[in-house]
Amino acid sequence: MRLRHKPWAEEFITENAHIVVPNPEEQKGKWAALFGNDNPLHIEVGTGKGQFITGMALQNPDINYIGIELFPSVIVCAVEKVLAAETPKNLRLLKVDGAELENYFEKGEIDRVYLNFSDPWPKKRHAKRRLTHASFLSIYERLLPDNGEIHFKTDNRGLFEFSLVSMNEYGMKLKYVSLDLHAEMPENNIMTEYEEKFSAKGQPIYRLESQFVTK
Amino acid sequence: MRLRHKPWAEEFITENAHIVVPNPEEQKGKWAALFGNDNPLHIEVGTGKGQFITGMALQNPDINYIGIELFPSVIVCAVEKVLAAETPKNLRLLKVDGAELENYFEKGEIDRVYLNFSDPWPKKRHAKRRLTHASFLSIYERLLPDNGEIHFKTDNRGLFEFSLVSMNEYGMKLKYVSLDLHAEMPENNIMTEYEEKFSAKGQPIYRLESQFVTK
Repeated sequence: MRLRHKPWAEEFITENAHIVVPNPEEQKGKWAALFGNDNPLHIEVGTGKGQFITGMALQNPDINYIGIELFPSVIVCAVEKVLAAETPKNLRLLKVDGAELENYFEKGEIDRVYLNFSDPWPKKRHAKRRLTHASFLSIYERLLPDNGEIHFKTDNRGLFEFSLVSMNEYGMKLKYVSLDLHAEMPENNIMTEYEEKFSAKGQPIYRLESQFVTK
Repeated sequence: MRLRHKPWAEEFITENAHIVVPNPEEQKGKWAALFGNDNPLHIEVGTGKGQFITGMALQNPDINYIGIELFPSVIVCAVEKVLAAETPKNLRLLKVDGAELENYFEKGEIDRVYLNFSDPWPKKRHAKRRLTHASFLSIYERLLPDNGEIHFKTDNRGLFEFSLVSMNEYGMKLKYVSLDLHAEMPENNIMTEYEEKFSAKGQPIYRLESQFVTK
């Protein structure tokens, strides 16, 4: 994603503290209290412009959602999406690094991880930065309950191939694999901005659901 | 594949006993003697018209190849391919059922299994007939050495999705996955008849290498 410098971003984020949680490390272990209920918590790592997480929050009011996005100039678009959706009560955003999730969540506090159109980091020497690399899988595993799930979609062939191999190597169960999501077009599929753009060009969208297995 | 009745097929097969091994159950445990060397043995289950196995035999004279094909009207095409290639010494065909491989091979006698453009059996109730179903994987596992490999390619999306899930569930290691083989076009790729046809239409060819893991 091309990042434009937005000098007003930080102020806009601070003004919307009811959406972008300030000092999120203080909420660690207390997210149920923040949401005011014990509903499951699903997070999206790399939430981008927020269309997916906002759509999911509207579609599933009995699930709590947190979108994680590090870049101020990107998360402001997500804030605008949330405002346009009249700020669903079951949705928050965090402006933090996905590699540091353990600073913000206790083991078992997250019930599912969504990864959508993550940065493919195509160069081999950057493989460790891919959000489906073993180093990230081990973070998700430490936060999810036993048998917790990752739901992942992308248009990037190289990243999807890598992710299948990586998750299999990690010992995860591949519960579901689609190599052309839109050929099946599940009714409840919430599209991301990228997904709309790439599927309109006729490119296949890949999707998988994987699950950690208790050893 | 459309099967035409060929009344001359059985006679043609018998005439070419130097290619289609007669009474193959008698060779069980003795394939090295038949080939006259201790080279690795790679088999293709569902060899069809034989372009792949013949091409592989010519490309790799230090590996022995056996193509397995049940249908007389199909295997005769493979025999013709082998004859046209001047009958490589490291190649044989078997007119037998892939589900009965254990009648013809000892454990460890086969070093690799190739599956190419296998029948997708798209109906759910026929899933057990797919050559990557657990019931077939267990046959290959009993015949291959520890850490033996399956190399599989297909144009059929549903079969490939099923195979990824099935092999993962079986506990196999996915060593390599390509969701568009021809975008990479490895130099030594031998195309099957189907592969030529479907890739010419711009359809992606899927390929994987998987490995049994000692438990």
